[in-house]
Amino acid sequence: MREKTILDYETVELDTKTDELVIIDQTVLPGKTEIIRLKTAQEIWDAIYLLKVRGAPAIGVAAASGIYILAKQIAESMAASGKEDFDTFYRQFLEQKEYLNSARPTAVNLSWALNRMDRLVQSMSDRGISDIIDALKKEAIMIKEEDIKVCKAIGEYGLSLVKPGDGILTHCNAGQLATCKYGTATAPIYLGQERGYHFRVFADETRPLLQGARLTAYELHSAGVDVTLICDNMSATVMKNGWVNAVFVGCDRVAANGDTANKIGTSVVATVAKRYHVPVYICAPTSTIDMDTKTGADIQIEQRPAEEVTEMWYQERMAPEGIKVFNPAFDVTDHDLIAGIVTEYGIAREPYTESFREIFKRKEEMKNGRTKSND
Amino acid sequence: MREKTILDYETVELDTKTDELVIIDQTVLPGKTEIIRLKTAQEIWDAIYLLKVRGAPAIGVAAASGIYILAKQIAESMAASGKEDFDTFYRQFLEQKEYLNSARPTAVNLSWALNRMDRLVQSMSDRGISDIIDALKKEAIMIKEEDIKVCKAIGEYGLSLVKPGDGILTHCNAGQLATCKYGTATAPIYLGQERGYHFRVFADETRPLLQGARLTAYELHSAGVDVTLICDNMSATVMKNGWVNAVFVGCDRVAANGDTANKIGTSVVATVAKRYHVPVYICAPTSTIDMDTKTGADIQIEQRPAEEVTEMWYQERMAPEGIKVFNPAFDVTDHDLIAGIVTEYGIAREPYTESFREIFKRKEEMKNGRTKSND
Repeated sequence: MREKTILDYETVELDTKTDELVIIDQTVLPGKTEIIRLKTAQEIWDAIYLLKVRGAPAIGVAAASGIYILAKQIAESMAASGKEDFDTFYRQFLEQKEYLNSARPTAVNLSWALNRMDRLVQSMSDRGISDIIDALKKEAIMIKEEDIKVCKAIGEYGLSLVKPGDGILTHCNAGQLATCKYGTATAPIYLGQERGYHFRVFADETRPLLQGARLTAYELHSAGVDVTLICDNMSATVMKNGWVNAVFVGCDRVAANGDTANKIGTSVVATVAKRYHVPVYICAPTSTIDMDTKTGADIQIEQRPAEEVTEMWYQERMAPEGIKVFNPAFDVTDHDLIAGIVTEYGIAREPYTESFREIFKRKEEMKNGRTKSND
Repeated sequence: MREKTILDYETVELDTKTDELVIIDQTVLPGKTEIIRLKTAQEIWDAIYLLKVRGAPAIGVAAASGIYILAKQIAESMAASGKEDFDTFYRQFLEQKEYLNSARPTAVNLSWALNRMDRLVQSMSDRGISDIIDALKKEAIMIKEEDIKVCKAIGEYGLSLVKPGDGILTHCNAGQLATCKYGTATAPIYLGQERGYHFRVFADETRPLLQGARLTAYELHSAGVDVTLICDNMSATVMKNGWVNAVFVGCDRVAANGDTANKIGTSVVATVAKRYHVPVYICAPTSTIDMDTKTGADIQIEQRPAEEVTEMWYQERMAPEGIKVFNPAFDVTDHDLIAGIVTEYGIAREPYTESFREIFKRKEEMKNGRTKSND
């Protein structure tokens, strides 16, 4: 029997038979692949708070599924006591929503998904509770399907930029573990893997939190991809050796001019890639493109604790006590270092502002087209 | 009372009163500053083998002092038993020399220093043992003085390239801990510190072995230098912020065209520095310039164990079992990325081959001048 790989699991899954949230516990990776089942509000909150599930899209899906599971429990307990009024239901729904939302207050996708579920409930105030529960279930599933669709579309566009046997370098984890399936930066790799492209992937370990070593190397290795772990400072060597044909990375926010904030070190990789004529592609769901942010200079960079650099992961303190540490979580890669920004509606190129406008136009047209054909 | 700093110690010292080798135990840094005294062959061998003393110049001086200490013990035990013949002495001297040399067989400075001491003994075969012991002592002290002189001269030339208040970035440890005093890349920093230059220094942590975090940050911090520790992937951010005016790094070997092999990641720093118009200076004793190596392509790069990346320093394995790892110890920085190569006889510039020839000519002239005036 073939051993199960990461591709046999989904990062976040709603078990519709048992109404449980099923996730890969990312806190015990890469040592153990542990699938856990969550049912209570406390369990779901803990999973988000303790980063058992992480990555913006995955958190959103976990929250949507989670609030559906809790709503169903509310409905069941109301039915048991003979009640069925909307106001009682909605008051308890809001309590659970606020509770889940408090797990990671700054995670945009968490509140985005919960608000979307909330709006659905509000729009159905004149309907029976069981109808609302059915609708919440469908919405949770749809949010997940949308995420997978976005990732897959990014994967298809990304795949068009490389050829079988290519060497691909990636930084941090914009992988399946951060989404529901495929990931963003890893989507072309997984799709290529399904089609026998035999990529040779280099994963930067990504100091200080080592998402590349712990997560990306883990998930690609588990999926049978030919992946080699390197330290962040080895990118020039692998590129100089001619082993890398393209760089694919994710992003946290893209400015209107294409400047891209992503995990610290991305701009170093991009600078080195430019010297060795290796194209750098940013994989960016259109939701991360912020046309109101003119350039990267307008993006505020989060500073994180010194301990991540000086002691985290280590058996003993690896830097002297009292040492100053500069620890920015992200950096901005200037648009001139970027060969293309891969979205679910196509690949944006210089000049990015115009290219993004066309992509958003296409998105709007496709949405309208879908709405029309649904009519 | 002022607390002692790194500048109050010497990395390697021969205590001429007790004939002991006194070193800072680098294996317990940065947690503890422990000065240890070594007297037996076993203790000296262990210190070199276990990296209690490390860095090519420091190892050379430790070996020269060590073989002097052991030679004196041989002489004393011979005198106690009434013997004083050269052959008996030299046989035992060679045994100890071979023993020390076996501690790190590939460390060039180790065998270089031991051979220099050996040649001295050979040249004195017609002299009394006590004369030989005196000469060995002087030679050990001279080897150390030469190292300090080289570092100081590099420091003076390096200091001419920066101004008070400048930001300096360094990678790995080419510091006092790798030499006897001043270091090479750190020499301009220490000389500046003595003269109130108030540099702001950024130390790359230098994965995988973290020499920057453990050693450079430690020694500069201990010396009262304003030093900030960063991860290797943050160089672009500090340079983009305008915080860095110059990069100073050491080197392992410089080719005739200026291509420079140094700790892995140096070429990444240099590529990023070029983008931000920050000059990169290689601090290179002339002994590291190899005119027989035409370009960097001729330099063989040592590959090191995967475990350094996947588990060393960590509480638990940080990458999946069985993951492939590429772990080159060094990389080659192409000469076009280098603004100058700082030697103890002046600063070489493009075209390096010609510039090196002039530096070697100057070295020869100064040696001859010294010889002449000594005559």
